[in-house]
Amino acid sequence: MELIQENDLILIVHQGRKYLQKAVPGKGFHGKGGTLDFSSLVGLPYGLRRGQYDVFEPTLEDMIMYGVRRETQIVYPKDAYYICFKLNLGRGCRMLEVGTGSGALTILFSRLVGPEGRVVSVEKEERHHKNARKNLERFGNLETIDLRLQDFSDFEEGEFDAAFIDLREPWHIIEKVRSLIKDSASLGVIVPTANQVSETLRALEGIFGDVEVLEILLRKYKCVADRLRPDDRMVAHTGYLLFARKVRENEPARESIDQPISQ
Amino acid sequence: MELIQENDLILIVHQGRKYLQKAVPGKGFHGKGGTLDFSSLVGLPYGLRRGQYDVFEPTLEDMIMYGVRRETQIVYPKDAYYICFKLNLGRGCRMLEVGTGSGALTILFSRLVGPEGRVVSVEKEERHHKNARKNLERFGNLETIDLRLQDFSDFEEGEFDAAFIDLREPWHIIEKVRSLIKDSASLGVIVPTANQVSETLRALEGIFGDVEVLEILLRKYKCVADRLRPDDRMVAHTGYLLFARKVRENEPARESIDQPISQ
Amino acid sequence: MELIQENDLILIVHQGRKYLQKAVPGKGFHGKGGTLDFSSLVGLPYGLRRGQYDVFEPTLEDMIMYGVRRETQIVYPKDAYYICFKLNLGRGCRMLEVGTGSGALTILFSRLVGPEGRVVSVEKEERHHKNARKNLERFGNLETIDLRLQDFSDFEEGEFDAAFIDLREPWHIIEKVRSLIKDSASLGVIVPTANQVSETLRALEGIFGDVEVLEILLRKYKCVADRLRPDDRMVAHTGYLLFARKVRENEPARESIDQPISQ
Amino acid sequence: MELIQENDLILIVHQGRKYLQKAVPGKGFHGKGGTLDFSSLVGLPYGLRRGQYDVFEPTLEDMIMYGVRRETQIVYPKDAYYICFKLNLGRGCRMLEVGTGSGALTILFSRLVGPEGRVVSVEKEERHHKNARKNLERFGNLETIDLRLQDFSDFEEGEFDAAFIDLREPWHIIEKVRSLIKDSASLGVIVPTANQVSETLRALEGIFGDVEVLEILLRKYKCVADRLRPDDRMVAHTGYLLFARKVRENEPARESIDQPISQ
Repeated sequence: MELIQENDLILIVHQGRKYLQKAVPGKGFHGKGGTLDFSSLVGLPYGLRRGQYDVFEPTLEDMIMYGVRRETQIVYPKDAYYICFKLNLGRGCRMLEVGTGSGALTILFSRLVGPEGRVVSVEKEERHHKNARKNLERFGNLETIDLRLQDFSDFEEGEFDAAFIDLREPWHIIEKVRSLIKDSASLGVIVPTANQVSETLRALEGIFGDVEVLEILLRKYKCVADRLRPDDRMVAHTGYLLFARKVRENEPARESIDQPISQ
Repeated sequence: MELIQENDLILIVHQGRKYLQKAVPGKGFHGKGGTLDFSSLVGLPYGLRRGQYDVFEPTLEDMIMYGVRRETQIVYPKDAYYICFKLNLGRGCRMLEVGTGSGALTILFSRLVGPEGRVVSVEKEERHHKNARKNLERFGNLETIDLRLQDFSDFEEGEFDAAFIDLREPWHIIEKVRSLIKDSASLGVIVPTANQVSETLRALEGIFGDVEVLEILLRKYKCVADRLRPDDRMVAHTGYLLFARKVRENEPARESIDQPISQ
Repeated sequence: MELIQENDLILIVHQGRKYLQKAVPGKGFHGKGGTLDFSSLVGLPYGLRRGQYDVFEPTLEDMIMYGVRRETQIVYPKDAYYICFKLNLGRGCRMLEVGTGSGALTILFSRLVGPEGRVVSVEKEERHHKNARKNLERFGNLETIDLRLQDFSDFEEGEFDAAFIDLREPWHIIEKVRSLIKDSASLGVIVPTANQVSETLRALEGIFGDVEVLEILLRKYKCVADRLRPDDRMVAHTGYLLFARKVRENEPARESIDQPISQ
Repeated sequence: MELIQENDLILIVHQGRKYLQKAVPGKGFHGKGGTLDFSSLVGLPYGLRRGQYDVFEPTLEDMIMYGVRRETQIVYPKDAYYICFKLNLGRGCRMLEVGTGSGALTILFSRLVGPEGRVVSVEKEERHHKNARKNLERFGNLETIDLRLQDFSDFEEGEFDAAFIDLREPWHIIEKVRSLIKDSASLGVIVPTANQVSETLRALEGIFGDVEVLEILLRKYKCVADRLRPDDRMVAHTGYLLFARKVRENEPARESIDQPISQ
């Protein structure tokens, strides 16, 4: 049974709103539901209900949504979860991320590749790199993550199982990223505008296959059994996601066994 | 470099359509792009382009979408990926699934909990149980998965880190599932109709907190750089997702340190 | 050529935001684009651009969205436009509206039925009735509209070509409304929750045919040619729309000519 | 009370499917619900239920969706209804349509402008022009519609209250259309791809104001009270809609009364 410790990060839920707090003894949370004294929580199990407040152990999503400090737009969970699986990340994978940003996605990648794997994340803006490092120290697992402060054009090592690009002009580096990932490996890209999607599609043409472009929309409902209805407003756009897999140049058919292919 | 072996499962992509095939020597794939002889592929690296066909190493998603044999409606990747992370599954977690179905979600759960974790999945229909077992033998990892053919009402062991229910009437077992998961642990439920959402919300009331109801919509685009547009049709509904976390009964405040809470 | 007159309602557009104003001489509009003096506009044609401001003649939508005073949630244009046509309103129709609300929809109905037609709108709350009357005096056409302050249960006259209900519990009056509309005539209903949809469907069963339930979602884009993308947020829910057509009781087949129908 | 006449167009609804039929005496409808003999219907009122079939008087939507012969993609009702109102069409308006297509939208325009108004619709493809004429003879009102078989570049007359363009490359004619509509008048455009939206936005820049780009999504539900849920699949894309209003060139401020505008 998990007990609340002094200085733990705790998640307080009050009327559908969530607050990630550090349970510093002597301090407390002051909201419309009154004051919740942190000292009074220490030693109690998580999942407790106190007045109008529920106190939970934070999940990874809570930490990404309410804990990670953002210097850039983070990749939303709805998109991030899809990306992780679509890139086929599993234990032991070597993953390349171009554009660390705030590091939210990096944390998720590292959860899937595990200690046997490795996430190499490249960022050229020192400010973002430093911010991401702080976020990863608090919420991630730096042992499996390799944060690089450098321009991607100088990056050399290869043989990655998958790659993800979160840059303004991904089309400039598609070819280079392709050279660093294995044959058949998956590439993901996120861009906010339709124009960027078109430009990226052009860069993928001929050298990647199984190209997909998609959007993920998450629609939340008001949780009232007798008055079930969607929320009045929703996030309508975060980004377009592109996925593709590396193809090799056309193989000359091995003559003795290959059948002619009619087109 | 991954090479295609005899009898490997391979993914063939042709004009946006995907085919999961077993590369049996002497056999081949016959489509609008002509015949692709499997023997001619053996020993070559994945990611090859042969005429109009691209041949890739299948991802987990390919195997779930095109390989898993379905006796029931599978949970779609768009939903499954979200569920996995929302339940905060990580290495070493013990996960309870009620309603194994075809086992597609079970495979994803097992990927996240890893060999240190365990997925216990209960199914009362023998036909589904057997089908799921076959799917897991082909695509999953039975070492970390414990498939049970039994009625959930007879299930006893507890202390799970998370639970997921995919049954027609989840509300009947909400209380029991609650007794089997840890405090603060996450519960997920999928149901196809709004009426079932209402009924489930009623069952969660008072004993779970942080309740969320949501839908995930995935909208695909035609991948043509100069004529970018969404597909004409899309999957409009798979299911409503519910998430909640277990709360304990109201704690009596520990008097010496607790502040009064004004309401 | 339409010229701006003193005290005209004018629409000012500034950086994507719209303001409906009365062009009172001596007064002006004060925004981030500076001051726009109304007297300086009088006598000029609509469609003028002055600094950062564009000044247009308001459309019916502008008046409904920015002019109508709301005591209740108005029916949004996206829904209202669909309703009007779905109810098959045309010149000369007699239309029944139960629940006048703010009168926004009433104005649209009256535009379609024309002077040869008639919209009878019933409202039992005096406050709403009075507010709707004021809105119709400003933006509508009271000659073709008959606003009634009364409880619908006392309403008697019939032979309507179509009916629309915007009440909290429409199911109580479905039968009565049916008795007031012609055979084959269309009925529309708007309700905000899924539970209300179910309840209304039950009331329609057996006495209405061609039942449809639907939602309309409107997704706006940022209008930048080189950075085309959807708005970050959108209205996710206004209401569920139901449509149905009145069926008569089962006719006994006229024996001499009717063929047996095998079921 | 409307009675079914010989050779009337009638709408048959069977298990959620709709069939527009001509009630030719001696003929009938043959479906899964058995045979419906048309002669047996003549003289009976619309709205009748015969076995599993309901027979209704067709609405304008029925005729557009099931009656209009399509040589081109028609504008869907969900879009068409929105367009009609957004263009602020009312009785007596003069409307310009460039690209008649199948004439479905033309029929709706004519309903709103009424006999006092006029819809001028230009089409350069003879095949489409002729097909539209046939559709309008059956379902529309040719008295208020002026179908022109000509290239729009030769079109001259002006002073329209609104205009709509349904062409592949609308940007080439934006300026010309602008010269034919009144100041402050609304223009609508429909295009299927994001690239076309960008191109059209460029053409509108500077000469139109109040520009909007949007999509309308219609999501239908299965009409079962106890199992309410969206349909499994939906139309995901028909077209992007653009709307804008004509602005005049910048007016020189009339000095004696205008205030300086700080920017």
